[in-house]
Amino acid sequence: MKELFGSPGKLSGLMLRLGQFSLAAASVGFMLSAHNFYNSTAFCYLIASMGLQVLWSFGLACLDLHALRTKRNLQNPVLVSLFVFGDWVAKRKVTAFLSLSGASSAAGVTVLYARDLNTNYCKSQPDFSCSRFQISVALAFISWFLLAISCHTMLWLLAAL
Amino acid sequence: MKELFGSPGKLSGLMLRLGQFSLAAASVGFMLSAHNFYNSTAFCYLIASMGLQVLWSFGLACLDLHALRTKRNLQNPVLVSLFVFGDWVAKRKVTAFLSLSGASSAAGVTVLYARDLNTNYCKSQPDFSCSRFQISVALAFISWFLLAISCHTMLWLLAAL
Repeated sequence: MKELFGSPGKLSGLMLRLGQFSLAAASVGFMLSAHNFYNSTAFCYLIASMGLQVLWSFGLACLDLHALRTKRNLQNPVLVSLFVFGDWVAKRKVTAFLSLSGASSAAGVTVLYARDLNTNYCKSQPDFSCSRFQISVALAFISWFLLAISCHTMLWLLAAL
Repeated sequence: MKELFGSPGKLSGLMLRLGQFSLAAASVGFMLSAHNFYNSTAFCYLIASMGLQVLWSFGLACLDLHALRTKRNLQNPVLVSLFVFGDWVAKRKVTAFLSLSGASSAAGVTVLYARDLNTNYCKSQPDFSCSRFQISVALAFISWFLLAISCHTMLWLLAAL
């Protein structure tokens, strides 16, 4: 069994998952704290996709922590790990695609508000919290990047079985 | 060597690539034919990412056609194919991520125009071609889906080498 960065049951894997979890949670928090976020479908979609990622990453982080504390190898025996990984890769990929599309659609709307609309919408409406939208979208993209790393690791581990 | 749906040098691969090419080209065409598309950064980004996919899919379709006509096996010898696939998978993945994020950000802006803005923006401005934006985004998503299929095939072929 190969030892890859971010494998399940390793410290690097736990760190990756905690990073995904905290960034996604911060992204949801910033978006929820902004006024008028519910006016745009793309922002609601970002909250839904990041919320899913929070739950998912938290669950995997708990599993990693358990494996680290009991010093159990999550990658054995082969048959069990095959099921676990198959399930894992499929759900990870779906979560990764959801996160990317959520972050991108929210980014599109944020750029539209911040730059594209004729009168500079963000400055003309002081109760419209554009900076929070921007921070939330940036955090979502970083969180997606960490997710993409662990998704890749999983796929290589599955291929190496 | 496994025979997977959409392998390079096969008829299914050629069909997939032609589908990606034509859908991406149609998406760019619809977007360019709409008025005022340049007012939104997300729409310009969609055109850029779909334009890249048009070029890339066209090149691969030509390679497939050449392999089919000369009946040459693109998957041999192993060393050459390793390089070709490594390059291929990397570029495909980048193109797939670009396409998905381009389509999503344009979709976010389109939904904002079509549904979220207070006064129904699309109906109130007759020279604003919302339906063309929607068709273009839909075509971009279908094209991305075909790209994701061939990207998966490539990854499995690479893993099976």
